[in-house]
Amino acid sequence: PHSSLTNCRNNHNADRSALYIFVLVWCVTAGPSVTPGEEVNGWGNPMDLFDEPFPDVSTYEDFHTIDWLREKSRDTDRHRKVRSRRVTLLDAWSGWVVMLLIGLLSGTLAGVIDLAVDWMTDLKEGVCLSALWYSHEQCCWTSNETTFDDRDKCPQWQTWSELMTGHAEGAGAYVLNYFLYVLWALFFAFLAVSLVRVFAPYACGSGIPEIKTILSGFIIRGYLGKWTLLIKTVTLVLAVSSGLSLGKEGPLVHVACCCGNLFSSLFSKYSKNEGKRREVLSAAAAAGVSVAFGAPIGGVLFSLEEVSYYFPLKTLWRSFFAALVAAFTLRSINPFGNNRLVLFYVEYHTPWYMAELVPFILLGVFGGVWGALFIRANIAWCRRRKTTRLGRYPVLEVIAVTAITAVVAFPNPYTRRSTSQLISELFNDCGPLDSSRLCDYVNDPNMTRPVDDIPDRPAGPGVYTAIWQLALALIFKIVVTIFTFGIKVPSGLFIPSMAVGAIAGRIMGIAVEQMAYHHHDWIIFKKWCRPGADCVTPGLYAMVGAAACLGGVTRMTVSLVVIMFELTGGLEYIVPLMAAAVTSKWVGDAFGREGIYEAHIQLNGYPFLDTKDEFTHRTLAADVMHPRRGEPPLAVLTQDGTTVEDVEELIKETDYNGFPVVVSRKSERLIGFVQRRDLTLAIKNARQKQEGVVSNSVVYFTEEMPLLPPSCPQPLKLRCILNLSPFTVTDHTPMETVVDIFRKLGLRQCLVTRSGRLLGIITKKDVLRHMAQMMNQDPDSIMFN
Amino acid sequence: PHSSLTNCRNNHNADRSALYIFVLVWCVTAGPSVTPGEEVNGWGNPMDLFDEPFPDVSTYEDFHTIDWLREKSRDTDRHRKVRSRRVTLLDAWSGWVVMLLIGLLSGTLAGVIDLAVDWMTDLKEGVCLSALWYSHEQCCWTSNETTFDDRDKCPQWQTWSELMTGHAEGAGAYVLNYFLYVLWALFFAFLAVSLVRVFAPYACGSGIPEIKTILSGFIIRGYLGKWTLLIKTVTLVLAVSSGLSLGKEGPLVHVACCCGNLFSSLFSKYSKNEGKRREVLSAAAAAGVSVAFGAPIGGVLFSLEEVSYYFPLKTLWRSFFAALVAAFTLRSINPFGNNRLVLFYVEYHTPWYMAELVPFILLGVFGGVWGALFIRANIAWCRRRKTTRLGRYPVLEVIAVTAITAVVAFPNPYTRRSTSQLISELFNDCGPLDSSRLCDYVNDPNMTRPVDDIPDRPAGPGVYTAIWQLALALIFKIVVTIFTFGIKVPSGLFIPSMAVGAIAGRIMGIAVEQMAYHHHDWIIFKKWCRPGADCVTPGLYAMVGAAACLGGVTRMTVSLVVIMFELTGGLEYIVPLMAAAVTSKWVGDAFGREGIYEAHIQLNGYPFLDTKDEFTHRTLAADVMHPRRGEPPLAVLTQDGTTVEDVEELIKETDYNGFPVVVSRKSERLIGFVQRRDLTLAIKNARQKQEGVVSNSVVYFTEEMPLLPPSCPQPLKLRCILNLSPFTVTDHTPMETVVDIFRKLGLRQCLVTRSGRLLGIITKKDVLRHMAQMMNQDPDSIMFN
Repeated sequence: PHSSLTNCRNNHNADRSALYIFVLVWCVTAGPSVTPGEEVNGWGNPMDLFDEPFPDVSTYEDFHTIDWLREKSRDTDRHRKVRSRRVTLLDAWSGWVVMLLIGLLSGTLAGVIDLAVDWMTDLKEGVCLSALWYSHEQCCWTSNETTFDDRDKCPQWQTWSELMTGHAEGAGAYVLNYFLYVLWALFFAFLAVSLVRVFAPYACGSGIPEIKTILSGFIIRGYLGKWTLLIKTVTLVLAVSSGLSLGKEGPLVHVACCCGNLFSSLFSKYSKNEGKRREVLSAAAAAGVSVAFGAPIGGVLFSLEEVSYYFPLKTLWRSFFAALVAAFTLRSINPFGNNRLVLFYVEYHTPWYMAELVPFILLGVFGGVWGALFIRANIAWCRRRKTTRLGRYPVLEVIAVTAITAVVAFPNPYTRRSTSQLISELFNDCGPLDSSRLCDYVNDPNMTRPVDDIPDRPAGPGVYTAIWQLALALIFKIVVTIFTFGIKVPSGLFIPSMAVGAIAGRIMGIAVEQMAYHHHDWIIFKKWCRPGADCVTPGLYAMVGAAACLGGVTRMTVSLVVIMFELTGGLEYIVPLMAAAVTSKWVGDAFGREGIYEAHIQLNGYPFLDTKDEFTHRTLAADVMHPRRGEPPLAVLTQDGTTVEDVEELIKETDYNGFPVVVSRKSERLIGFVQRRDLTLAIKNARQKQEGVVSNSVVYFTEEMPLLPPSCPQPLKLRCILNLSPFTVTDHTPMETVVDIFRKLGLRQCLVTRSGRLLGIITKKDVLRHMAQMMNQDPDSIMFN
Repeated sequence: PHSSLTNCRNNHNADRSALYIFVLVWCVTAGPSVTPGEEVNGWGNPMDLFDEPFPDVSTYEDFHTIDWLREKSRDTDRHRKVRSRRVTLLDAWSGWVVMLLIGLLSGTLAGVIDLAVDWMTDLKEGVCLSALWYSHEQCCWTSNETTFDDRDKCPQWQTWSELMTGHAEGAGAYVLNYFLYVLWALFFAFLAVSLVRVFAPYACGSGIPEIKTILSGFIIRGYLGKWTLLIKTVTLVLAVSSGLSLGKEGPLVHVACCCGNLFSSLFSKYSKNEGKRREVLSAAAAAGVSVAFGAPIGGVLFSLEEVSYYFPLKTLWRSFFAALVAAFTLRSINPFGNNRLVLFYVEYHTPWYMAELVPFILLGVFGGVWGALFIRANIAWCRRRKTTRLGRYPVLEVIAVTAITAVVAFPNPYTRRSTSQLISELFNDCGPLDSSRLCDYVNDPNMTRPVDDIPDRPAGPGVYTAIWQLALALIFKIVVTIFTFGIKVPSGLFIPSMAVGAIAGRIMGIAVEQMAYHHHDWIIFKKWCRPGADCVTPGLYAMVGAAACLGGVTRMTVSLVVIMFELTGGLEYIVPLMAAAVTSKWVGDAFGREGIYEAHIQLNGYPFLDTKDEFTHRTLAADVMHPRRGEPPLAVLTQDGTTVEDVEELIKETDYNGFPVVVSRKSERLIGFVQRRDLTLAIKNARQKQEGVVSNSVVYFTEEMPLLPPSCPQPLKLRCILNLSPFTVTDHTPMETVVDIFRKLGLRQCLVTRSGRLLGIITKKDVLRHMAQMMNQDPDSIMFN
């Protein structure tokens, strides 16, 4: 029997580069009769095709969906060829090499970003005279003149007012510092938004919704490009330093994915296969979270739970490797100067008690309610931005938000400093020597030894002031974050959410602590809190609150708890964290099932088929397929009898991605599916290079050709571009099964048949539209293909 | 148009219970025209069907494979019905309730097992006079007369020789103790194997290979039953106490899965749906590992990486919950008396250095090599047991292995004690007060303060003795474990593998430590090991070795590292552990890709479609399907024209699980698929209850019925048992795609068509056989359906 490759020999004049890809995709897959190394006349070794450059051939167009099954079979073909060349080992290792490179680069970038943010945040308040590139902390650390108590004050570090007027105190100095603080913030924000506008529009936002969509098999060209990487890194530093209510964690995931994309382009295994590339990107996302929090295991689970779509075990191992290398690189850079990997290192000295689960669960409820309200408010505002004139002035919007943030933030010490420092202080357990206002407790005069395990003490005036300031900071953060997330600078949501939760948690923690101190005899405290004991750790409440709010916004649970667990490093506090995270998820889900990232995906109309939603409606494939009743019949090709002209006409008149091929219009028996771009290229090349192919040449998709009279023009044989195994379901298939098939196999389209007759086609977009319709949403919100 | 349910009304006399299930499965799925709550004449409310008992109706037979897609659609049907009853909330919570119960029970059982094993292990050596039910440690803890140094010796605890002859020392006492030690061991082992033989044959082994297979969609009735739960719990205690080289970790997973099965039978949501039941079992496996090691996160990852097949995000959350509850319950029971959750709690005081990666990687190589050799040797021995007369004497085999183990183990102090105690001691960092022989270092006389951070010291004579004994113990463990894993008592492999690795690691650790002490000036030590510093922690080497060996045997990586990480609780040592685990996996994979569990699955011929293997051969569906060339044609039914007698004949002559239904034998156009058992039951019921149905009644699968002359017997309409959406692929589909579809959708069979004509069928067994053939294995090793 003729192999399908043999059928293509007539095309030997056709443009190689354009046709190689067809051979790659269809012929080799379909033709088991070609043994490796077999010489095909005029084509050279068919196994060499892979090394040739493909000018102008990219398999998918921008804003289109990939076909996972097809990518997978392409990779297997490549694999087979590689095996015959005995470079399997190198090939297998290339994955690990890419991971190593991603880990190294994203760890380095995270370190650089951390250092730069530290320096520039402090630049808003003053400058280090001994070395301009030192941040406040570094400046005073290197100074020998500071005492242990007063670590923050050293002569080398001068605020702007000191430097310019010589006065550190007083109304004039305050106003000058205030003014310069706002000015620096505006300058940073303006620089950030301008850079984003001019060089890389994709660099704005957190990037996680888009990365989720890309990982599910969508093409957004340039989203993970080199320019985006560069500009996002720079503008992220600027945006965080400007004091806006945003974090660097989400964007770091985007930066790591850009690194992943960059390095995957070095190896043809990944650069030429969109499916394999996505495996690398999943691992890169894990590395991003790993460096953002110093939590490699949490990063892997984040990638698994929140970001990834297709996550085979191999990717699990590689993600873990990438996350570890990244974390290790970051630790070598040591940006926090404390040899710690984690962003917020905490150590608590007391266990928690069963009764404390009540406030923890209350914090969970708070987190869930806040998360749900935040998502609604933020989405409403973003929709407003998209639909009204507001969206036309992104620079102005950023400037306005920055100005308001800076003006409101400066007077309050808890909002003036960077949000990570705030969280760090809130998480902290008060030691005997802590100078923070939050630790201004009235000490027992009898207690002399400076021990770790300080008993509960009554709160001093500093604590009450701090509570008021924290309450104001809470309101401010809650309001301003709604308007910040979504402006045209890189902006993450992790840190602001954690800040909201940590403030609420700390306030509640102090309240419980004081209640326990003053009311030892209450029945709820009696059992576990004797006088003079250290019962309540307010820092733990802050941590639980942070987890609850982060959970309410993102609806993560396991990865969230693991990240928090890696921060504290103790299994002790896993139950409080879990209780809060699960409560916040339940409460949040009661208001609306989707997290902030899914909400933004829906807002932008990306074709994202969420694996979490369950489709439980009882519609059938016949209800969803095209053509519907009353619509014109499906555009099909017949296996013989169509002329080149007819095909060209069909291509011109329709914009479908592909056409089913049937035996005859009468029988409508399906034999295969042909891609639009394959068809276009094949006809174009045949017309240019193959003699005798004219407009009324007949196109054949059959295996054998009929004997034509010599008067007929040269026929065009196209079986080698025909996909002989298109995916089909019957019209009676329940849509839940169809949705399942689309999700699990990553299909782009599926043909609908009944008793072997072709009835219609269902595309991924049709499925998404149908799902939107079933959930009473606007089906036209699904925009891309 | 007639709904498919309407077609079935004629059957209103048919046996309800038998037909309800058909309606449940096919009619409701296929018929969107039945709105919830619609009254169907003579059938009652169709939504009520679900509450009726199904006597004698179980959907799958023993040793058969389930169809995941079908189970999923059944669950959705149930879901729809539940929603209409407004008990959705209760329904949604039932999952969490089951998890809570599983966590509570498996935590309790683990605690009881720990306590019982402790007591019975010590019973082999002596008895506590103050209270017979105290173990050695508990006995001496409660005694007030012990000093801090001599915790192990207290008057209340008497060895058998002391009790019986009054002599604790001397040759006679030694021989008596030796004799009684062996006797107790034999007694425990005999009891264990007899109980397993008589009451629950499924209770033997680790159970993980079978659970993997069950989770992939296989039915083994009774494997997770109540008897198995009870007997496995009891015999596990006996087997571990008998001193055999086996652990309780694997069997604990089996025990937890039995709990999961037990509680899932309380809720019809899980008991009636094999797919949903497997979600519960996946979570139960996580709870099992969680209590086995005190590592809830590691448990979830173990379930995800090693055991589970279908693991949606919902299961991830629930697994985590179950694992936490289980861990928390275990901690409340506090079997180790130290308020710690983990099996081996360790705390190291020194960091590790880059140069140490070399020995760590060497340990990884050792682990990989040992793992691969162990798998080969153990499988060879188990195959021998299966095929030769050896398998006929399981009790004798257990007795023999126990006798040899006990006789060889007693003289060596490192093999005499329980393996967990051994590992615990090997992991331990030598403190200043440790009385263990492994900590017999020559102390610096100038050093007076008892600090944690002791510098490296020269080894004393005790250490050298210990090394010799450990080396002997290593050889003994390596040999005896090969013959132990697979005997007919509950036996886990985690602890023996960890012991082998920990011994090797500790020996290497001491070697490196002494080298570093004596050769400070060597270039490799010069950089990081100054004299008087504490450079090398031999306990860490033991831990790395344990991880490497466990990784070599099971080929886990991420979950392994996480379990180890949860044991130490420090992120510091994650890089050494990862390095060893990855090296051991690579080295092991070089010898053979499958871990011990996959090897045992293959040995037993279970139909397990591994998701880890990649299928890269270029065969097509046409090469695998039945009928092959020369085989008799496929047994099909036609949509009309077949008589009841013909169908009965077909059922009798063949043993297929189902039959495709075609339009006519000539056109061979597929319209659906009918299950064998549905067909059998439907015809049986129709013959009994439906008037006029006789042998030459014509069976109709069509929607409309032709008008029959009155002379014809009453026809039998069976459209409602016809699956109108059978899964099809074309004959040109590459087998790698087919394998992917089987794996991801969990199919049981798939029909093969070309241009709408039915060509053949591929079952899961065909796929597995083909894969075995492609890997040059015996295709007949796949035994079940």
